[in-house]
Amino acid sequence: MSAIYLDHAARTPLDERVAAAMTTAYAELVGSPHNLNHPFGRRAWEAIEVARHEIACAIGARSDQIFFTSGATESNNLALLGSGATNRLVVTCVTEHASVLEPLEQLERAGGHVVRLQVDRSGHLDAETLVAATTSATQLVSLMWVNNELGTVHPVADLAARVRRPGLLFHVDAAQAFGRVPMNVTDAGVDLVTLSAHKAGGPSGIGALFVRDARLLHPMLFGGGQQTGLRPGSLPTALCVGFGVAARRVREELTSDGANLTRSTSRLRTALQQRIGALTFLTPVRGAAPGILSVAFDGAAAEDVLALVGDELAIAAGSACSTGNGRPSHVLEALPVSPSVRHNTLRLSPGRGTTDAELDRAVEVLASAIALLRGLSDPTRAIPSSSNVLDQRGS
Amino acid sequence: MSAIYLDHAARTPLDERVAAAMTTAYAELVGSPHNLNHPFGRRAWEAIEVARHEIACAIGARSDQIFFTSGATESNNLALLGSGATNRLVVTCVTEHASVLEPLEQLERAGGHVVRLQVDRSGHLDAETLVAATTSATQLVSLMWVNNELGTVHPVADLAARVRRPGLLFHVDAAQAFGRVPMNVTDAGVDLVTLSAHKAGGPSGIGALFVRDARLLHPMLFGGGQQTGLRPGSLPTALCVGFGVAARRVREELTSDGANLTRSTSRLRTALQQRIGALTFLTPVRGAAPGILSVAFDGAAAEDVLALVGDELAIAAGSACSTGNGRPSHVLEALPVSPSVRHNTLRLSPGRGTTDAELDRAVEVLASAIALLRGLSDPTRAIPSSSNVLDQRGS
Repeated sequence: MSAIYLDHAARTPLDERVAAAMTTAYAELVGSPHNLNHPFGRRAWEAIEVARHEIACAIGARSDQIFFTSGATESNNLALLGSGATNRLVVTCVTEHASVLEPLEQLERAGGHVVRLQVDRSGHLDAETLVAATTSATQLVSLMWVNNELGTVHPVADLAARVRRPGLLFHVDAAQAFGRVPMNVTDAGVDLVTLSAHKAGGPSGIGALFVRDARLLHPMLFGGGQQTGLRPGSLPTALCVGFGVAARRVREELTSDGANLTRSTSRLRTALQQRIGALTFLTPVRGAAPGILSVAFDGAAAEDVLALVGDELAIAAGSACSTGNGRPSHVLEALPVSPSVRHNTLRLSPGRGTTDAELDRAVEVLASAIALLRGLSDPTRAIPSSSNVLDQRGS
Repeated sequence: MSAIYLDHAARTPLDERVAAAMTTAYAELVGSPHNLNHPFGRRAWEAIEVARHEIACAIGARSDQIFFTSGATESNNLALLGSGATNRLVVTCVTEHASVLEPLEQLERAGGHVVRLQVDRSGHLDAETLVAATTSATQLVSLMWVNNELGTVHPVADLAARVRRPGLLFHVDAAQAFGRVPMNVTDAGVDLVTLSAHKAGGPSGIGALFVRDARLLHPMLFGGGQQTGLRPGSLPTALCVGFGVAARRVREELTSDGANLTRSTSRLRTALQQRIGALTFLTPVRGAAPGILSVAFDGAAAEDVLALVGDELAIAAGSACSTGNGRPSHVLEALPVSPSVRHNTLRLSPGRGTTDAELDRAVEVLASAIALLRGLSDPTRAIPSSSNVLDQRGS
């Protein structure tokens, strides 16, 4: 496939070392990790425990605080709905992921009360706003570490320090943070942290929940007693192994990856500004994680750009999870920006394997599409006669 | 590893065609299947829909009735706890899997009422018992198609026909049936069917729930809207692809696989009887699926046998999920058999790749261990001086 992949915030390609470890695991670790009577089972179990240790090390946790799940959606649901029927006073933010906001809506339907804090046009939450909203009755705070559409970072450690007290659970959705920014969940002083493997070079279909103290949580699934009963189900050995190798890579290479991603994101920002212009970056220059660039081009609706560039450029409008209905995502709707910015916003997300040549080519593809769209909307400008881009759109 | 693997009922090795398809999927289908704006996403989505179709075809369902989950535990929980707060009169069976019985205990804690039917010494449920227990107020019946410890088959279609009426949901845990016996869920007239990939040559970490009518069920997880919101979460492309290839294999090769497994199981049964003797087969000769043989050897406790043969033979005592506590499984406890049979029961589970030589060698290994244990328990018989098996046990 010759298209340029700038959708790493949705899913990263499987790291080649992860792929190799999983291939070996599929071939050799065939036993159920929950039957320790025979070497097939014991070897699978040992490999899973090594993986759990790698994940724990990557985020500054203990192995027994890591619970495997099927992904970030399940981790977020377990953190929010498993934190007990008494946790009904919750503070969160309007720009959280749907897998945080929707469980909280469920909690409201059951009689809970949820406060959703506003953010500024860069997606930043004011610490004083959080402090003012968090009362002695608040039982749960849920904030994401890195926003999936904007890249904006919530300074989780600082925010947790401001509101932390006995009886308050602080949950962090770190699906986009893992592999993108340094994380130490113990130093951050948080209680529950959602992780996903497939945004950090690991396989899809597996995630984890860091649980500071397992007594804080009730299970959502029942049967079999695996993972101390908090998240039962026969563990998927190869997925755990792959997640573990991805976590090791994150721990060892985050600094260099981060530097490369920062450079790529800056290059993209500069080139878009110089080559296309008349644009609005929603992703702030300061306080954002590298590798996510949210940008609105004047006179070019996001869905029209996507229709023009789709075969050459893999990018997203709003979050991948919410595309297809033609409406801006809830994150864009929540930002204090103009309707045209909302409708024009695209997310470009380079990854560790993205080359400068790909970035430059991506900017050219976008420049052509946006020039065409701006020409169409300006009757004084002619449509380039050599362009066949309109034909593509109808296909 | 030279040990003989007879624990296929716990987990099968990944089929080589499944492994090949997954390797390709990991390399080529890197996009999020929920971003259809670009070819990476569209190709992933198409591959998932092909897989869903293969799974549907393998069980006589429509594609839109197949919902991917993380495995049988989640499928069972979704079927039982997602079937609505009003479904509080439930009929099930004492020999169901823990991932059925424990969600139902949860339902009881919430005020529900669960009737657990007894079985005979082969694990068979009398149809009249089911009919008598199922009243006009019963909202849910949950029975497994094939018992994971005994191989015993519940004649699901016949049983469903006896109790079926509007307003009654019939759930079947088919985790052990898929790939072992022919299944047509439409002909069987059931509403909810749990499937697992990793017991039929597919990868672990993925399962499915057949849902006859999605309006019958409420989600347990929230956020993102994938799979019509009934089971949200970004779908794991390679796992879906692997499950799909495994399902195709099941559809195309079930007849020949079944014949081979039946022959292997019979060979094992005959050899154990002839070579060891003084034993009780819990698995019935008629009314059991091939590939699972539950057998108790007189004078040889299961955990002692496992300790002696563990490095040479991968077998299970009770179910793999419940080992490690020294107690017979809930299935064995539920059978009307003697305490010594319960404590002596082992599960031997050959697979499609198991050779006759492996079966014969397995019987020899078991014969040696059981002869030793019977000698130890009989003071008139000497311990073979050439045996080093006691040393192994201490390691």
